[in-house]
Amino acid sequence: MSFREDGVAAVDWVASYLERLREFPVLAQVEPGELRASLPVSAPESAEPFDAILRDLDDVLLPAVTHWQSPRFFAYFVGTGSEPGILAELLAAGLNQVGILWRTSPALQELEEVTLDWLRQLLGLPAGLHGHLEEAASIGTMAALAAAREAKPGARVVVCSEHAHSSVEKGCRILGLEARPTPVDDAFRLRPDALDLRDACAVVATIGTTSTSSIDPVPSIADACERQEVWLHVDAAYAGSAAVLPELRDVFAGWERADSIVVNPHKWLFTPMGCSALWTRRPEDLRAAFSLVPEYLRVSEEVASLSEYSPALGRQFRALKLWAVLRCYGREGLQRRIREAIALAALFEGWVRDEPGWEVTAPRPFSLVCFRREGTDRQNEALLDRVNASGDIFLSHTKLNGRYTLRLAVGSPRTTEADVRHAWEVLRREAARG
Amino acid sequence: MSFREDGVAAVDWVASYLERLREFPVLAQVEPGELRASLPVSAPESAEPFDAILRDLDDVLLPAVTHWQSPRFFAYFVGTGSEPGILAELLAAGLNQVGILWRTSPALQELEEVTLDWLRQLLGLPAGLHGHLEEAASIGTMAALAAAREAKPGARVVVCSEHAHSSVEKGCRILGLEARPTPVDDAFRLRPDALDLRDACAVVATIGTTSTSSIDPVPSIADACERQEVWLHVDAAYAGSAAVLPELRDVFAGWERADSIVVNPHKWLFTPMGCSALWTRRPEDLRAAFSLVPEYLRVSEEVASLSEYSPALGRQFRALKLWAVLRCYGREGLQRRIREAIALAALFEGWVRDEPGWEVTAPRPFSLVCFRREGTDRQNEALLDRVNASGDIFLSHTKLNGRYTLRLAVGSPRTTEADVRHAWEVLRREAARG
Repeated sequence: MSFREDGVAAVDWVASYLERLREFPVLAQVEPGELRASLPVSAPESAEPFDAILRDLDDVLLPAVTHWQSPRFFAYFVGTGSEPGILAELLAAGLNQVGILWRTSPALQELEEVTLDWLRQLLGLPAGLHGHLEEAASIGTMAALAAAREAKPGARVVVCSEHAHSSVEKGCRILGLEARPTPVDDAFRLRPDALDLRDACAVVATIGTTSTSSIDPVPSIADACERQEVWLHVDAAYAGSAAVLPELRDVFAGWERADSIVVNPHKWLFTPMGCSALWTRRPEDLRAAFSLVPEYLRVSEEVASLSEYSPALGRQFRALKLWAVLRCYGREGLQRRIREAIALAALFEGWVRDEPGWEVTAPRPFSLVCFRREGTDRQNEALLDRVNASGDIFLSHTKLNGRYTLRLAVGSPRTTEADVRHAWEVLRREAARG
Repeated sequence: MSFREDGVAAVDWVASYLERLREFPVLAQVEPGELRASLPVSAPESAEPFDAILRDLDDVLLPAVTHWQSPRFFAYFVGTGSEPGILAELLAAGLNQVGILWRTSPALQELEEVTLDWLRQLLGLPAGLHGHLEEAASIGTMAALAAAREAKPGARVVVCSEHAHSSVEKGCRILGLEARPTPVDDAFRLRPDALDLRDACAVVATIGTTSTSSIDPVPSIADACERQEVWLHVDAAYAGSAAVLPELRDVFAGWERADSIVVNPHKWLFTPMGCSALWTRRPEDLRAAFSLVPEYLRVSEEVASLSEYSPALGRQFRALKLWAVLRCYGREGLQRRIREAIALAALFEGWVRDEPGWEVTAPRPFSLVCFRREGTDRQNEALLDRVNASGDIFLSHTKLNGRYTLRLAVGSPRTTEADVRHAWEVLRREAARG
């Protein structure tokens, strides 16, 4: 195998894939098991050439791909792997760094620290926060809750809003803690008057909930946490990236008082998957929760490894892609694209508002629009199914006050006004058929 | 930015890096903070071209890289990112799949299931195991222990050998369980007569411990676990890959009876970082520990998502690189390279044995040699420091029965007999200076 030749073919494959994104059905149109049935049941005896991989990508895998990179992907929260991020993953794999101790890759550790500090500044967070990267926000939130448990022994409750992400409950289950969901107001924000901090080691406040992108009242939650010495974790996995916009800083008021904050650059900061930032102003509590240095890892340098703040021991070189994205976009480039996503969502929201028979079902602080068509839940669900089965666009749903609601999230820098307009046309077309 | 041009430059950079591997000091020769000080304190305002990344890789990052890809890296357990694995990471980043539900990437989920089944067969494990990938063995082991806890409520003890990996204790700490280290025999194997399963929900048996690659007596541990209905987790993170060799199957006897098994293709199966396999024959217990389906993830397909078996919700497309490696090496290619690593370790072991003033300090079942030079612990530690500071090779250490011991692990397909001979020469040269 010639690495250079195969590598150029692989780059060419990705380039061509990105050029063709609008040609694919956004949601994979296969049946469960269809891909499995078309793959060999065993690994080959002898080596195959790398171009067999590329051929099978086209012939076998692509029909089973849901195109997260598509400009017409509007489901969940959009995650975009931008070009510099993609190429940085190639470089990271080439270097194959393993962060166990500082010495096993000073580059991995120090670039991660520096890049997390760059991002901290871009988001207007205070100096002095300790930052590192995890694979996913679920892991970062779980790690923060483990530190909170360590910091307040005996307190076994984690308070959050009933709209908090499911990872809070999952983290509690792993840690043997109890989640206490708290009611929300009519804008889906945690009601501070309903906060019950008895036996609580932590509160998770969300800026940008998954269902509606609602914003919990962080300042008053922070007051309560300070009074009762309870760890405040802010989940801004999706919306945190929008803090690069100075005009939006107000909605992040109070997060600078958090004990820990999660933001996912792999959601809305154009970084490929596996890049979730966790900052804390109480690194020693995190270290107390996770540090373990067996003899075979004992060395002379007096540098704490990032693994001592994290559930895993071996760390990937996740910072390289974030570093490449921050540099190749620059602050201005990030700001422009995030502003644009919000403007496109606002445009779509206006169309929905202005169209008889449709309604907006939640406030829209960022780039997510919650809406529904008049009629029953079943009719709205059928509408969504038709829309997604068309392959033209891909949207997801939630339930608000028990009613089925559609969600359209904008986030890809590849998405243009024409794509959003197309989404609206597809929705109206399929609604007319219902 | 032209993705094709930048991509070709990135491939060229990696190709040239891999060609130059023997030119770099294996262990980074920088001081803590040196890289940090040479990087800008903030992200740039405006976009930079991608070639600035490549330039800084050479000028700024490389001196802070410890070269895991080097054929002269012999520390810990060697992790090699092979060429097909590296290029598959580029493809995975290009596709940027996010596994939340089956529908969000049927390709990710079904390729992961199929590839894990290929690997299961290659390792001679029984049919019917449920397999998925985690970022790291620490996470897989923690997940297995969470399932064990779920399966046996009230039992809070995890039994392992005193040579078990630190991730067992870390997992216990996260889960609120208690690790019970058990004494080992003179070959560093858990002593079954010392097994105490009172209040135990799980036993972790290791095939290939981190310090010496010793092999716990899995069959008798499995007997005890069956008698007492205790979950048996086998940690074969390093050595499991060697089960591709039929002549080594005997040393894996009993692992087919495990409730869960961890093997890291990113350790000894030429797959870049972030590829740890977890198989279980009790998937429903794993699912009970981790499944949570909030409304915004409720869909009509009746396919359990792999996230329901795992601590994280969003999953990366980790299987693509493993699939590429298994295909581009084939069973024969994997077998040849693993055999060769073991043969090179045996050769080195012979040199140590034959040389007056040196001794082998543990049995060598795989590709790890534990040895020391006559003299004090301090002298051996100083020897290791000189060896690593030379940059010629990189080794790590452990303590066995309280005595400082050097470890030389072979594992890279790039490592030749000349590299191992070079390691021996460097060791003797530096010993002569001590």
